[in-house]
Amino acid sequence: MPNDTPPSSGSPSSGPRVMTIPPGEDRERLTCPDCGYIAYRNPLIVVGAVAVWEDGRILLCRRAIEPRKGYWTLPAGFMEERESTMEGAAREAWEEARARIEIDALLAVYDIPRISQVQMIFRARLLSPDVEAGPESQEVGLFRWQEIPWDELAFPTVTWALREHHDRLGRHDFAPALNPTPDTLARWDRML
Amino acid sequence: MPNDTPPSSGSPSSGPRVMTIPPGEDRERLTCPDCGYIAYRNPLIVVGAVAVWEDGRILLCRRAIEPRKGYWTLPAGFMEERESTMEGAAREAWEEARARIEIDALLAVYDIPRISQVQMIFRARLLSPDVEAGPESQEVGLFRWQEIPWDELAFPTVTWALREHHDRLGRHDFAPALNPTPDTLARWDRML
Ligand SMILES: [Zn+2]
Ligand SMILES: [Zn+2]
Repeated sequence: MPNDTPPSSGSPSSGPRVMTIPPGEDRERLTCPDCGYIAYRNPLIVVGAVAVWEDGRILLCRRAIEPRKGYWTLPAGFMEERESTMEGAAREAWEEARARIEIDALLAVYDIPRISQVQMIFRARLLSPDVEAGPESQEVGLFRWQEIPWDELAFPTVTWALREHHDRLGRHDFAPALNPTPDTLARWDRML
Repeated sequence: MPNDTPPSSGSPSSGPRVMTIPPGEDRERLTCPDCGYIAYRNPLIVVGAVAVWEDGRILLCRRAIEPRKGYWTLPAGFMEERESTMEGAAREAWEEARARIEIDALLAVYDIPRISQVQMIFRARLLSPDVEAGPESQEVGLFRWQEIPWDELAFPTVTWALREHHDRLGRHDFAPALNPTPDTLARWDRML
């Protein structure tokens, strides 16, 4: 689950690198002074899953790449073109953990406007407990709730999604969790 | 609610226009042969709202721009950088209908992989019935369910979101609707 930005391209001395307001628009856009190309930058969608085996154990992946290399995360990544959100979440589970999953519900939608990112985290059923590290993972594993390495999770949204999942065990047809309020965060802290 | 692509930039004879696989990647990306810039293209998020006044009437906007100029739509548009999904939906309601809204629930998430678009449609309360056309609308209005111009709606997702809204009247804490199944579409057809 990357809280970073996607692969950037070119150096600051080539490509779109000047902020100007294009004709007919109301805000600055990144423009290339060499060829005139306007790089519209839009919020990015991260898709991921809390993938659960029959016995309740949850799939986590230890990151083999920065940022937060060595920390544990949910299988998640940037949605690609011409796929659905659920297809993207299933693709990431396969790429990062060789896991086959079946999506069950939209668990959470997290807005991270600071980095213009929207994370859509699904609840999913693992179709087999046989998982193994893909190229972006050092190792992968299935964790009982009591075994989750809370102090070694890569990003706040991983912690949030795991707790929201736990709060919804056995439930169906629920509204997805949004960013936790300060009250919710304080309640989770007291539970540790 | 644009089912088209966002403002494109440059002509096909300048800017990123050649598909190549960049070093270290696994798929083709649009690259500028003049300056080397790689235009990563990501799915775009459309945010919008079914905004409802106290008496149940729903806000619709008649489009002043292509595509589907002259047809009725929900206030919706492309999410911008550094805003949350709910802020984006409220911004669009203001821009297109001078409407102030308070978001209540995530009503629907529609995947349109063909055009790499994810639409997030919220249910919202209109804070005042005083609305007026913004620059992208010919006119705006509040419609009772029986008055909705079903034959003059701009996009399928507008029809879908209105029907899903109707199916959830009085409900809270529900899972957002996803793209309708063929069965659901057939049921809606029979209701017309
Ligand atoms: Zn250029
Ligand atoms: Zn160029």
